[in-house]
Amino acid sequence: MKIFAYGIRDDEKPSLKDWEAANPEIEVDYTQELLTPETAKLAAGADSAVVYQQLDYTRETLEALAAVGVTNLSLRNVGTDNIDFDAARELKFNISNVPVYSPNAIAEHSMIQLSRLLRRTKPMDEKVARHDLRWAPTIGREMRMQTVGIIGTGHIGRVAINILKGFGAKVIAYDKYPNAELQAEGLYVDSLDELFAQADAISLYVPGVPENQHLINADSIAKMKDGVVLVNVARGNLMDLDAVIDGLNSGKIADFAMDVYENEVGLFNNDWEGKEFPDPKIADLIARDNVLVTPHIAFYTTKAVQEMVHQSFDAAVAFAKGETPAIAVKY
Amino acid sequence: MKIFAYGIRDDEKPSLKDWEAANPEIEVDYTQELLTPETAKLAAGADSAVVYQQLDYTRETLEALAAVGVTNLSLRNVGTDNIDFDAARELKFNISNVPVYSPNAIAEHSMIQLSRLLRRTKPMDEKVARHDLRWAPTIGREMRMQTVGIIGTGHIGRVAINILKGFGAKVIAYDKYPNAELQAEGLYVDSLDELFAQADAISLYVPGVPENQHLINADSIAKMKDGVVLVNVARGNLMDLDAVIDGLNSGKIADFAMDVYENEVGLFNNDWEGKEFPDPKIADLIARDNVLVTPHIAFYTTKAVQEMVHQSFDAAVAFAKGETPAIAVKY
Ligand SMILES: NC(=O)c1ccc[n+]([C@@H]2O[C@H](COP(=O)([O-])OP(=O)(O)OC[C@H]3O[C@@H](n4cnc5c(N)ncnc54)[C@H](O)[C@@H]3O)[C@@H](O)[C@H]2O)c1
Ligand SMILES: NC(=O)c1ccc[n+]([C@@H]2O[C@H](COP(=O)([O-])OP(=O)(O)OC[C@H]3O[C@@H](n4cnc5c(N)ncnc54)[C@H](O)[C@@H]3O)[C@@H](O)[C@H]2O)c1
Repeated sequence: MKIFAYGIRDDEKPSLKDWEAANPEIEVDYTQELLTPETAKLAAGADSAVVYQQLDYTRETLEALAAVGVTNLSLRNVGTDNIDFDAARELKFNISNVPVYSPNAIAEHSMIQLSRLLRRTKPMDEKVARHDLRWAPTIGREMRMQTVGIIGTGHIGRVAINILKGFGAKVIAYDKYPNAELQAEGLYVDSLDELFAQADAISLYVPGVPENQHLINADSIAKMKDGVVLVNVARGNLMDLDAVIDGLNSGKIADFAMDVYENEVGLFNNDWEGKEFPDPKIADLIARDNVLVTPHIAFYTTKAVQEMVHQSFDAAVAFAKGETPAIAVKY
Repeated sequence: MKIFAYGIRDDEKPSLKDWEAANPEIEVDYTQELLTPETAKLAAGADSAVVYQQLDYTRETLEALAAVGVTNLSLRNVGTDNIDFDAARELKFNISNVPVYSPNAIAEHSMIQLSRLLRRTKPMDEKVARHDLRWAPTIGREMRMQTVGIIGTGHIGRVAINILKGFGAKVIAYDKYPNAELQAEGLYVDSLDELFAQADAISLYVPGVPENQHLINADSIAKMKDGVVLVNVARGNLMDLDAVIDGLNSGKIADFAMDVYENEVGLFNNDWEGKEFPDPKIADLIARDNVLVTPHIAFYTTKAVQEMVHQSFDAAVAFAKGETPAIAVKY
């Protein structure tokens, strides 16, 4: 059996090596190139292809892959928006993705960023870098003293709650579909408004579905405590960023961390050093002392990458054996 | 009853206001100046003085204070090395300090710094600051995947253990006097050597007493895992810093966070911006991607400062009433 992988990055190679060592009977070949109509032929002779790219999987691409006999396609990531599913259906593609790779990667990042905002590490680091070693007036706040509002208690939100408990913070949570265990613990408030009114810090873990569009807006911010701290590692469209910026300017919002942005596609994961930065709003946020911007990196840990590689390769093997892996995409 | 306080900083004023509001029957006056033979007379008419300074409490200073009728002295900090105890004894001074103000302040800082090292936030922040928004190759590691060795399970070490448990990390610990509860949980290893051999990351919470001088040295580092991460927020003299630097240079030590330094007095809590930095070793560490230097700020939180102010003022009142507060210094 042979598996061919596209777009393999350097940071994925250790996980690929692990997987090969654990599966010596499977032949593996790969390229750093992405899957396109031109590169599809590289997979000739393989039983399955493993992929990860923002580039579209177009009809032309899928046809080129099918033409060399490959109709098993395992994505190493979660998103499938860039697949032409009509073409995939006609060509009888089996497709899998990796919906859960490491909730901890994202939850940890969100809570590290929250703790950093409270502790004012950005201005303190900058002071140390320029050899100003005075501590005052850069005083920190403690995680344990905060009431933290968690919106969304799915895979990631629940890990964030455990981290907060370890710090000794008070957790309040809201979810449309409460989790029985957390309910028994009495962590839920009855409405978002209640959460807004009580929380010193608020972190989001809900999907970016249309009904959640701009969940955080001028109205909801007005309901929050003065000096609230906001964290968004979930989806950019959950926030009306202009309203958040107004809140920062007025002091209503004391600190803000964002890993996602409504207009991040084309901006994030690019190097703008020495070039004109195309988004002045984000440039302004990056420059602020009380804002931490990261370019959608919350998922980017060695453990998460390992899961993405191992789960996708396992699924590719299952497809090649005629089986349906648990992470097959139903479409 | 009147209390006079010296060296009050701006960040202490909110806590002072709180305390005054809760104790309306006590007259409070204060100055930003430190206690010296010259400023001692400012306390005339007070029943107790409250102080916090690195400057010595000399015989001359204590005599000047006693001369205006004040022999109750409540320190807002823990350290009493700078008191002339012989003079204090002769002058019959009552002295208190604040030995435990917020173990969480220090434990949180140490674990935030550890998580930041693992996550490589320093190089990532620097990339974002210069508008390089690519995530690769700045991949992070997760707290939950680490075996963390905690040396010293007193007030602060125990809080650090709780934080690590929240992250889902594996904790191993060593203490000369094991804590019964942690022992029942099976967290202890039998020797420092065992801890060195097993830990992916090591954080220190033992006092800087002579027997702990250079606990971390070339020999102990050689016993650690390749790529170990070290954190020291306890005392500078616990580490042979040259050995740590050798370890960083060879790659034996992957990352390092320090909040304390053997030669920190005179260096930390000063502004060297635009001046010649007197310690090239520390300047070099500050500039490294995989090192986080902070100038003894782990204690510096709003909660800790509040405790230092409130506990010292409470003790000052107790002395004035002829009582012995629990935090009186026995000398
Ligand atoms: N930044 C990153 O690198 C990164 C990586 C992966 C996932 N994410 C994002 O993190 C978020 C959470 O992921 P997850 O795996 O925990 O999802 P999940 O499906 O396990 O949980 C989502 C929870 O949100 C709840 N919910 C949905 N809408 C709600 C609303 N309006 N109010 C209250 N609760 C609501 C659901 O009931 C569910 O419990 C998603 O938006 C996901 O896209 C970000
Ligand atoms: N960076 C800061 O701002 C800051 C602030 C406060 C305290 N500290 C430092 O933090 C450290 C811990 O403070 P704490 O309040 O937890 O102290 P603690 O007295 O409560 O606990 C210290 C523990 O270390 C153990 N111990 C001593 N020597 C040991 C050795 N050689 N091996 C193993 N265990 C040993 C003791 O048995 C004790 O359990 C101290 O060094 C203190 O000075 C730093």
